[in-house]
Amino acid sequence: MNILEMIEKKREKQELNQKEIEFFVEGYTNGTIMDYQAAALVMAIFIHGMTKEETTNLTLAMAKSGEILDLSSLHKIIVDKHSTGGVGDKVSLVLLPLVASCGVPVAKMSGRGLGFTGGTVDKLESIPGYQTSIGINNFVQNVEKIGISMISQTLNLAPADKKLYSLRDSIACVESIPLIASSIMSKKIASGAQKIVIDVTVGKGAFMQNMAEAKELAKEMIAIGKLAGRETVCVLTNMDEPLGKAVGNLLEVEEAIKALKGDLSEDLEAVVLELGSYMLKLANVEKNLEKAKELLRRNIENGKAYHKFLELIQNQGGDISYLSDFENFERAKYIEPVYSQQEGYIYEMNAKQIGKLASHLGAGRIRKEDKIDKTVGIVLLKKVGDEVQKGEVLAYVHANHIQHIETAKEELTRIIKMGKEKPKKIATILAIENDGK
Amino acid sequence: MNILEMIEKKREKQELNQKEIEFFVEGYTNGTIMDYQAAALVMAIFIHGMTKEETTNLTLAMAKSGEILDLSSLHKIIVDKHSTGGVGDKVSLVLLPLVASCGVPVAKMSGRGLGFTGGTVDKLESIPGYQTSIGINNFVQNVEKIGISMISQTLNLAPADKKLYSLRDSIACVESIPLIASSIMSKKIASGAQKIVIDVTVGKGAFMQNMAEAKELAKEMIAIGKLAGRETVCVLTNMDEPLGKAVGNLLEVEEAIKALKGDLSEDLEAVVLELGSYMLKLANVEKNLEKAKELLRRNIENGKAYHKFLELIQNQGGDISYLSDFENFERAKYIEPVYSQQEGYIYEMNAKQIGKLASHLGAGRIRKEDKIDKTVGIVLLKKVGDEVQKGEVLAYVHANHIQHIETAKEELTRIIKMGKEKPKKIATILAIENDGK
Repeated sequence: MNILEMIEKKREKQELNQKEIEFFVEGYTNGTIMDYQAAALVMAIFIHGMTKEETTNLTLAMAKSGEILDLSSLHKIIVDKHSTGGVGDKVSLVLLPLVASCGVPVAKMSGRGLGFTGGTVDKLESIPGYQTSIGINNFVQNVEKIGISMISQTLNLAPADKKLYSLRDSIACVESIPLIASSIMSKKIASGAQKIVIDVTVGKGAFMQNMAEAKELAKEMIAIGKLAGRETVCVLTNMDEPLGKAVGNLLEVEEAIKALKGDLSEDLEAVVLELGSYMLKLANVEKNLEKAKELLRRNIENGKAYHKFLELIQNQGGDISYLSDFENFERAKYIEPVYSQQEGYIYEMNAKQIGKLASHLGAGRIRKEDKIDKTVGIVLLKKVGDEVQKGEVLAYVHANHIQHIETAKEELTRIIKMGKEKPKKIATILAIENDGK
Repeated sequence: MNILEMIEKKREKQELNQKEIEFFVEGYTNGTIMDYQAAALVMAIFIHGMTKEETTNLTLAMAKSGEILDLSSLHKIIVDKHSTGGVGDKVSLVLLPLVASCGVPVAKMSGRGLGFTGGTVDKLESIPGYQTSIGINNFVQNVEKIGISMISQTLNLAPADKKLYSLRDSIACVESIPLIASSIMSKKIASGAQKIVIDVTVGKGAFMQNMAEAKELAKEMIAIGKLAGRETVCVLTNMDEPLGKAVGNLLEVEEAIKALKGDLSEDLEAVVLELGSYMLKLANVEKNLEKAKELLRRNIENGKAYHKFLELIQNQGGDISYLSDFENFERAKYIEPVYSQQEGYIYEMNAKQIGKLASHLGAGRIRKEDKIDKTVGIVLLKKVGDEVQKGEVLAYVHANHIQHIETAKEELTRIIKMGKEKPKKIATILAIENDGK
């Protein structure tokens, strides 16, 4: 086999077979195929697309390019949850202890934040003592023992995907639906998932800017899942405004704890229940989606979900006494209100702009090497559609640098857009995509 | 400006402007734009093509990427000749002294052979004493003094083209008409050409395999020439069989000398007169093509062309007494006839296969570093269409290794294809393309 013949085939819009795709992924991972050859092939793929079989073969080859997490010792159906990223997205912190409390085993490796979206690992690490790098054996033992463990990506999962993603980023080839789909699915498969529930975020703060793109991506991932024997369900959710109220690491942990105790905003609840019901269904815990939602609600009300969260934190070295009272939480030096300068209705709070602002305050990373300030961020008191009086507090800025305060307040006043008319409500759950079973 | 934006534009089939193309060529030449980024851009160009303006801007930017030969001190119209390559192609050796004898200044930098096609510089160097690296000042002075100089490419001409060509070769992107056209034209412009006559070879021993491709390439080069202010004429010539009779360095010099003295095969004569008449026309020496051909024929008959050749050789250190008698020529150790095993007509002598065979005997290079054996090669006694008797000599193999002889003879017997029917004559001059003036 020969990389030049492969490039030529794809250049001429021909289909690559499984052997060829494996040859490419292996060769690119071990360095016998050069970056510029991969770049030419990727551009041809970008322009001409790939068939579902090609995309699935690429996914499986990338999944096999590194270590694969073996969770067979758990003797249970492993359902993984993934999000395509958003702002204020604390879903995993709430959802995973909740489904674990319902009997779904949770063995979750999460990423760190980059750019304007946060990462679950950063949020967990803002809890004093919590260990996100505990070794794979401990990780699996924890799942066996208490049904849940959440760590950072410690295994060398899908290195081909990592290399290819970084290449795509430097040759303007990121926005390809089959390449995005295979990137996501390869990591899920490598991390041991047998069934997968994906939160495909849509809107101003999401990677997918509109429903058409989001549906295309969802269908692509479902097709890969089907061909690869990993049943996949995609829940398309609104990410025009931040999810819930807090944006910032420790601030989101606080919101997650409140949510686990039953105090949660409408949009966060909708996402948690929708994803959770599909996880329960795929895990064969409760096939009926409405009954599954009831079970989830019940486990919030009866405290089982929050109890599972505390078990998780304690089991990984976290200080649960710290969590028992929000008075213990470290706070930013400056907590400043942003007041409404008019009365009316909020019709837009651009999630990406709020994410960037929080990142600028220190909550996120611009480069991989950046350190995160866990205390800073933004807490919104209102959501899109809410009526607001003049002089009412719209949000709080949590900052550690005095020079950040005024600009952040001005920015938020600009970002939170108000009008006289009550805007039409946008649903949080926009669509469900699955393979029709 | 940003290479990612440029790649994205081309990926989406948009046109790049002059500034963007110059930015790319400069950045790629100086290494600020990486190979993999250039590879992605080139693949997008390969798939989506380029407008004539883009191709011209690329050509001019590549021409400007290195040194440019300044021939303004000659105060004459500089007409350059180029060939897209062939087997047995000794046209430059005959044509250039001939047009120089008619008053067209010839300042020619030529390449070495690679693969199955020979290079003019290799052929010139097979003449004892001839210097192909004489420095640019001597080169220009020689043209001023005797009207002709032929050297190897000593200047750093169009380094961007060199880099880009090598990249294209390693990412299966060679066969792109706009990229081939801009590669050729950039080198011609950098080597000081004001007007250009191009021999576009077509057929089994050529880069262009059929008339459609060859015409497309010709039209593309003519369009570049027009937009770049370098009037260009393309002569499409048959390269199914080798041109003339000899294939091999010193063997071709011998054939060229015979040709300059008036003894030349029909196809070689046709190519020399056609290209020559356009060179005379573009140089304003003789506007009427038929009269130009007469002038060329006359200068062969009256000995002026051969005299100019001797002047050229002597002026660059060559031993002209050596040329005065073919008995002086060094010969290969073994000169073996290939006999016809049947009677009939020759209907095919695949130029590429004969070129490869000559190269295998030592006449050419597989890798750039290889040394050439100037004495070896093949001399065809017959051309396609000729009638042959059983037992007649078809060709001679000139070899220096005894183990080459039998295989070469067998190969030639296989390559020279014969049938009972007289084949239809293929014209040597297939078409003329110019900008319609």
